[in-house]
Amino acid sequence: MRQAGRYLPEYRKVRAGAGSFLELCYNPAAAAEITLQPVTRFALDAAIVFSDILVIPDALGQDVSFREGEGPVLRPVRSEVEIARLRTDGLRDRLQPVYETLRRVRTELAENVALIGFAGAPWTVATYMIEGGTSREFAEAKAWAFRAPESFQHLISLLEEAIGDHLLAQVEAGAEALQIFDSWAGMLPDVAFERWCVEPIRRIASRLAAEAPAIPLIVFPRLAGTRYGAFAEMHGVAAISLDQTVPCRWAAEQLQPHLAVQGNLDPVFLLEGGEAMQAAATHILDALGKGPFVFNLGHGVMQATPPDHVAALCDIVSAWRPHRA
Amino acid sequence: MRQAGRYLPEYRKVRAGAGSFLELCYNPAAAAEITLQPVTRFALDAAIVFSDILVIPDALGQDVSFREGEGPVLRPVRSEVEIARLRTDGLRDRLQPVYETLRRVRTELAENVALIGFAGAPWTVATYMIEGGTSREFAEAKAWAFRAPESFQHLISLLEEAIGDHLLAQVEAGAEALQIFDSWAGMLPDVAFERWCVEPIRRIASRLAAEAPAIPLIVFPRLAGTRYGAFAEMHGVAAISLDQTVPCRWAAEQLQPHLAVQGNLDPVFLLEGGEAMQAAATHILDALGKGPFVFNLGHGVMQATPPDHVAALCDIVSAWRPHRA
Repeated sequence: MRQAGRYLPEYRKVRAGAGSFLELCYNPAAAAEITLQPVTRFALDAAIVFSDILVIPDALGQDVSFREGEGPVLRPVRSEVEIARLRTDGLRDRLQPVYETLRRVRTELAENVALIGFAGAPWTVATYMIEGGTSREFAEAKAWAFRAPESFQHLISLLEEAIGDHLLAQVEAGAEALQIFDSWAGMLPDVAFERWCVEPIRRIASRLAAEAPAIPLIVFPRLAGTRYGAFAEMHGVAAISLDQTVPCRWAAEQLQPHLAVQGNLDPVFLLEGGEAMQAAATHILDALGKGPFVFNLGHGVMQATPPDHVAALCDIVSAWRPHRA
Repeated sequence: MRQAGRYLPEYRKVRAGAGSFLELCYNPAAAAEITLQPVTRFALDAAIVFSDILVIPDALGQDVSFREGEGPVLRPVRSEVEIARLRTDGLRDRLQPVYETLRRVRTELAENVALIGFAGAPWTVATYMIEGGTSREFAEAKAWAFRAPESFQHLISLLEEAIGDHLLAQVEAGAEALQIFDSWAGMLPDVAFERWCVEPIRRIASRLAAEAPAIPLIVFPRLAGTRYGAFAEMHGVAAISLDQTVPCRWAAEQLQPHLAVQGNLDPVFLLEGGEAMQAAATHILDALGKGPFVFNLGHGVMQATPPDHVAALCDIVSAWRPHRA
C-alpha cells in the first residue's frame, strides 16, 4: 500500500521527470523502476506493482485525471446511458503497459521476492466512477445502488469482468499473488454490504480460483468491521488484509483459523517511529505471528514518513520470534 | 443526529436571521425553537437539544468558528503549554445559554416526549481541538497520542471533567436522557482504542451513574466495528447507538442481550425515500425491534433530505409490529 510513493526521494525524482500520474502508470520503464525502489532500499518479502485502481475506468474510456493535492477527478458516470458508453472491448490492449511493467519487474526481482498484482474491487471502483473522485458520504453511489439496484448491477457486473480480466492478465505477466482493494467497503450499510461488496468479490475469487489456481488472492475489505468475517471461508481467497481498526485478538480468533491475515499497523505509528512504533508492531506480531500471517500496514504509507522508519520497522519484523509456550 | 437542521425550511429561516452558528447555539430562544421544530412537524418520541459538540472547546477558550460549507475551524492546540492555557474554571457559566435552552424546551415539550442532552466524547472533541477541524487521517491527534501518551492524557482528563460537568448541568436543566457522541472512535487503531475511547467514556459513565442514576446514557462509538462490544456491559451505559455499518443480526446477538440498541438506517435511504427506505427500515425493525430498541439513523440527516421522507419513515416505524412467532 503505497509501498513506493512520495515518502521516497527516489520516487519523487522519477515522478518529477514524468508527465501526469497516469502517464507514469503507463510508462513501463518508469513504473518498473518505481516498483523496485522499496525492495532495493528495504528488506521486503514482496513488491507490489506500481499502478492505480483507476486504470480500470481510464481503460473503459472514462475521463480520469489526477490533480496535485486533490486526488483523482473523473467525469462522473450516473446513468445507464453513460454505462453503455463505456468501452469494454480491447481493455487488455489498453492496459498492456501495466503488464509490460510486471514483466520488467519480474526479470529484475530476486527470486525470493514475490511480485503482487492488484486491482480495486467493483464497489470501490464504482464509487470513484459515480462520485467523480473521493467522497465523504458516497451519497451518489449509494443512492443509485439503493434506488435502482438493477441498473447499478450492470455497472458492477461490467466491473467484475474487467477486474477479473485485468487480474488474470497480471498473472500472465508475472504476478505471483493478487490483491483486491475494496477501500470503501466499510461505507456500505448492513443490507447492501453482501450484495455490493461480498458477492462481486466472491464471483471474481471464484473465477481466479478456476483460471489461476496457483495464485494466492488477498482481499482487503477496508473498514468492514464485524463484516470481515464474510470472507473467512470464501472459495479462492487465501488471505485477508486488515485495516488498523481490527483488533488483532479478534482476527486471531475469528479469521486466522480459516485463512492467512495481513496487517495492520496504523501508518501514523510508522510516521512517528521510535518506541511507540516498536510497541505497536510487537503487539501485532505477538497476536498474529504464530498463525499464517503477513506483516503489513493497515493503510498506505503517509507522505511525510521518514524512510528510516520503514527500515527500522523491517528490522523489528525480521527480528521478531514467537515466545515459547 | 441533525434531527433539526438544514433539511428543514423552518430551520433555514431561523438560521438566516441569526448570526454565526455558535451565536445560534448560544441563543436560548432560537435554539429552543429549533429544538422543537422536528417534534412539532413529525411524530417523534424525543427531542435532542440544538447545540454542538464544539461548545466545549469554545467554552474552554479555544478559538472556534464555523465557516459555511467548510465545517468548524479551530486554532489548533498542539502542546502542553496550549493545554495549560485552556480556561477550565467557569465553564458552567459560559455554557448557561445551553442550559437555558433545555429549560425552555422542557416547558414547551409534551410530557410523553423525552428531552435528550448530549456532548462529544473526549477523543472526538480532542481530534477537533488538535487537528483544528475535521480531518481525513487524524494524523496530528493520533501522533500526539502515540508519541506522548502522558501529555495527551492531560488533555483527555481535562475533557472528561468538562464533559461530565456539562452533561450533569444538562440534567439539572431538564435533560431526561444523555448521549455521548464519539464520532471518530472508529479512527483509533486496535491498541489505542481502549485507552482513548473506552476508558474515558467508562469514567464519565461511572460518574453519571453515581450523580444522575435515573438518567439513561446512550453511547455512540461511531464506526467502532467489532469494538462496539466493549460497551455492552459497561456500568452506567443504558444504550448503544449503532452506525449504519453494524449488521443488525450481529447487534441482536452480541449487544442487545446486554443493553438497548439504537440505530441504524443509512441516511442515504432517508434521502432517497420510497420502497428502498421502507425495505431497509423494515429490515432493521425486524432484526432489532423485539428487544430493547430505539429506531434511529446511523448518522445525521443529510441536507438535501425531503422532509416528507422523514414523515414517511416515522409512519413506517409507528406502524411496524413484530411477527408472531
